[in-house]
Amino acid sequence: MSERIFNFSAGPGVLPEEVLKQVQQDVLNIFDSGIGILEHSHRGKAYDRVLAETLEDGKKVCNLPDTHKMLFVQGGASSQCFMVPANYLPDGRTADYYKTGKWAMDSIAEAKLYGTVNVCYDGEPGRFKRLPESMSEVKYSDNPAYVHFTSNNTIMGTQWKEEPEIPSGAFLVSDASSDIFSQPIDLSKYGLLYAGAQKNLGPAGTVMVIVREDVLDKQCRELPTMLRYTTHAENESRYNTPPTFGIYLVGQVFKWILRQGGLEAMQKHNKEKAKLIYDAIDASGFYTGHAEKHCRSLMNITFTLSTPELEKKFIKEAEANGLDGMKGHRSVGGARASIYNAMPRAGCEALAQFMQEFERTNG
Amino acid sequence: MSERIFNFSAGPGVLPEEVLKQVQQDVLNIFDSGIGILEHSHRGKAYDRVLAETLEDGKKVCNLPDTHKMLFVQGGASSQCFMVPANYLPDGRTADYYKTGKWAMDSIAEAKLYGTVNVCYDGEPGRFKRLPESMSEVKYSDNPAYVHFTSNNTIMGTQWKEEPEIPSGAFLVSDASSDIFSQPIDLSKYGLLYAGAQKNLGPAGTVMVIVREDVLDKQCRELPTMLRYTTHAENESRYNTPPTFGIYLVGQVFKWILRQGGLEAMQKHNKEKAKLIYDAIDASGFYTGHAEKHCRSLMNITFTLSTPELEKKFIKEAEANGLDGMKGHRSVGGARASIYNAMPRAGCEALAQFMQEFERTNG
Repeated sequence: MSERIFNFSAGPGVLPEEVLKQVQQDVLNIFDSGIGILEHSHRGKAYDRVLAETLEDGKKVCNLPDTHKMLFVQGGASSQCFMVPANYLPDGRTADYYKTGKWAMDSIAEAKLYGTVNVCYDGEPGRFKRLPESMSEVKYSDNPAYVHFTSNNTIMGTQWKEEPEIPSGAFLVSDASSDIFSQPIDLSKYGLLYAGAQKNLGPAGTVMVIVREDVLDKQCRELPTMLRYTTHAENESRYNTPPTFGIYLVGQVFKWILRQGGLEAMQKHNKEKAKLIYDAIDASGFYTGHAEKHCRSLMNITFTLSTPELEKKFIKEAEANGLDGMKGHRSVGGARASIYNAMPRAGCEALAQFMQEFERTNG
Repeated sequence: MSERIFNFSAGPGVLPEEVLKQVQQDVLNIFDSGIGILEHSHRGKAYDRVLAETLEDGKKVCNLPDTHKMLFVQGGASSQCFMVPANYLPDGRTADYYKTGKWAMDSIAEAKLYGTVNVCYDGEPGRFKRLPESMSEVKYSDNPAYVHFTSNNTIMGTQWKEEPEIPSGAFLVSDASSDIFSQPIDLSKYGLLYAGAQKNLGPAGTVMVIVREDVLDKQCRELPTMLRYTTHAENESRYNTPPTFGIYLVGQVFKWILRQGGLEAMQKHNKEKAKLIYDAIDASGFYTGHAEKHCRSLMNITFTLSTPELEKKFIKEAEANGLDGMKGHRSVGGARASIYNAMPRAGCEALAQFMQEFERTNG
């Protein structure tokens, strides 16, 4: 078995090595039960403990208000794109969406199946390089049911520095898949937040939903059992067989975050890591950052080089140097370094050093 | 770490130990890539290989006809309960359902949201102890869109010995969650088959769907992207981020099945295992089998004892003897031994021996 390399994949992404070592043990035999985590009934004692610890640690991580519930569902954030409007966008009302990239556009497309969408901010003319800097750039509809934003745009490398203000009467919905728990968050501002686990929380196939209890009461149309948030809220996320291993793994990541010092420590760590790479970009005339500086992401750092050939060479040599998954999304091109919570500082140091070296040789 | 015990859980259920040992390695570093299976991008080379091998081995396992596709989706079989009628039960038409237990009833309830359900066989008056022995017990509607049956009823311990005949013009739909790939199957008889992975195929959170290509063309209403079978069929089950680890693990189980000699070997193994326990029941006046003999399941063996107290004692002592997860479902009571593919023969021998011993002491 060769050593592990630095994995800059946008998702599924890197997980903490100590968590993976715990998995190695628990997969054969968890809690000394003689049965592995994958094989325990979701109604049995071992999984009762896994779920209880995951929820307890999760609430501790984010200081969850008593007014909110933490749920785990399946289907990826892509299923949340339609579940939110299916549950909460009544016929004849509007929902307001910030169009800030691909995921926002997917959400908008699904919402149109259920009601009227108002795009309150359109980033497309500016090629999604920026988020609104002030509310004067935003046009809300009259009395929207909710306002949806994407807290971090994985592809574009933009990230909100704080939540948008919203009209009274509406509640705030966030797709937080790619920066969840990378920094402190005030969940009392949110009506509903969802995050696919595969970037900052665990494996693909598990979605964390945080929902305010009064939002649960707003379901506006008849829906199949599995598509109602109330089903999952009323059955402690095990109405049916949940993705038990995924929820276990998210729980292990919560424990890891707490051991690191919680979300404040995460934020400090993430800011320092991102600075190493942004400094390498800004100090050069060789790399061009994609996102505008005021909304640069701490999670996904996007940049281009002067020609596609040079970009290809950069990606290839990075890979040869043990820096994997750096290819930018086809809609932006160039390179992308995804440096989620679990990316160690050493990975960012190695990348910054490689960037300087590559510039020296090819600049 | 104590030794592994025998896990008779109805699901999530036991997995082959050699598969779990492979997981221990791959979770830290798969294919010598320096990155674990959980952390690889679903668009990268490692996952390309995982998916290609899973599909290739899966097709080999079941001798998949060229007319059919194998897909992997999320949301459990519980989501298939509504996805099937959402896609394929048009307004104004009927679908016929065999009401043979809890899962069939869940499917019926969801289908009623979309169209007219005809219960073509109702097992409830007979407390679900039996399946129809001849087609004279079955009343189909005129021209149903499809016929749905549950190939094995986990809770009741009943299993179809062959597929029901269906009216021409309809296609056959099966919930095969609890006996998938436990014996050879002629998939050319099926329009659509789905199976939650957590019993015979892998971990909770991944569903295998096998669908005939002409069925894919029958989608009868507008649906969100993630709820269309065509979305998953056209995007090789990775329209969005799939449950990569789950699909990997299903692939490992496919390889294990092939190493055991394929579905014929599985069937032989499963018949022998089940016989050990059914013989222990039938040789006694102490245990009463729940299912009628003609439709006894090879996967879930349900039986009762003379009093609830004795049943409690049986479960408790079984547990103390390293025979875990034997408690029957509350709707049947008694005991249930789930002996999926991965349950070794030694587990069934140990259980049969324990049953004889317990009868001797308590009979």
